[in-house]
Amino acid sequence: MTEDLRAILLSYVDTLVPGISKDEVDGIVENLRVSSYGKGTKLVSQGDVALDCYFVLKGCLRTFHVTEDGHEHTAGFFVEQETLTVLESYRYGRPSPFGIECLEDSIVVLGRLEEEQRLLEREAGLGAILQRGLEEALAAQVKDLARFRAQSPGERYEEFLRARPGLAGRVAQHQLASYLGVTPESLSRIKRRLSRASGS
Amino acid sequence: MTEDLRAILLSYVDTLVPGISKDEVDGIVENLRVSSYGKGTKLVSQGDVALDCYFVLKGCLRTFHVTEDGHEHTAGFFVEQETLTVLESYRYGRPSPFGIECLEDSIVVLGRLEEEQRLLEREAGLGAILQRGLEEALAAQVKDLARFRAQSPGERYEEFLRARPGLAGRVAQHQLASYLGVTPESLSRIKRRLSRASGS
Repeated sequence: MTEDLRAILLSYVDTLVPGISKDEVDGIVENLRVSSYGKGTKLVSQGDVALDCYFVLKGCLRTFHVTEDGHEHTAGFFVEQETLTVLESYRYGRPSPFGIECLEDSIVVLGRLEEEQRLLEREAGLGAILQRGLEEALAAQVKDLARFRAQSPGERYEEFLRARPGLAGRVAQHQLASYLGVTPESLSRIKRRLSRASGS
Repeated sequence: MTEDLRAILLSYVDTLVPGISKDEVDGIVENLRVSSYGKGTKLVSQGDVALDCYFVLKGCLRTFHVTEDGHEHTAGFFVEQETLTVLESYRYGRPSPFGIECLEDSIVVLGRLEEEQRLLEREAGLGAILQRGLEEALAAQVKDLARFRAQSPGERYEEFLRARPGLAGRVAQHQLASYLGVTPESLSRIKRRLSRASGS
């Protein structure tokens, strides 16, 4: 792990557990599992058990699922300083509804439930922090779905550009289209319309 | 509260906390707040703090939000034996992104955080059960959003009919349309197409 990446991690652990001592942060970071994967690496196949959760230090992961009619759909993109957990697998060992792959060369921190439990025993305040993280994630997800229901495809695209700057240029356009719930042809039309509107 | 409704509640508490004694269930049910509301009652306005969570004994609640352009969109329908919590309000006192109203005359059990905390102190196993409920709700919500992204409007409607039998007949069609992310005109077309297909 380079010093840059180590600094990102130290700062992340520090944010996660405010007031934690420098020695404790060092102790946690030393024991983390960090892995590098090449672009295109499949980390999990849909239907397998996804025991690891991921914290992206560098690169981009994608979750996707293949529906009964054989079509593949993107469920999420995960870039630097974002976490990805398939909760039913990580917590309860159930098959993952999603496959996970690397869209770029990626460096990630891996976590497992038993490691979380060891940390929970050592860090008294961590349980409440993780609980709050879970609650905030659920509240955000409920709002995301409500917003997605309410938006037109064009509004979804414009919000994606605003909310996740730079990401549209890092992913394949057919993956972005399925993430936005439109066909690649519709996404092209939306982009042409926006570029005409901004050019006029 | 009628005996029928009381029986539903007793059975719900029993499912929620397996192995709980009959006396304890009785004690919990006696202390619950149950309210009846007429059709059309606004329980919460968007932007207000929604401190209560709801367990529907009878009737139908709806969450909705008005977007910047002044359009109202349905976020969810909640019928018998379903719970509705605006987590950021209930847990953290923040403004609710959703309004809540009764689509039918409704009877609901109301819960507040301080009541939950009193119960948590009395029922040793309840914390783990609520934690699991939160995790399962988040996992389900992630799958719901992924499915919504992947489905065509027609597929969303057919799944709604399958997953929530009887509900389509209980709600206004423009509310159902916005819940499915389509215009009322599109929903009418989808219904005509399906009725032609099933009639042929």
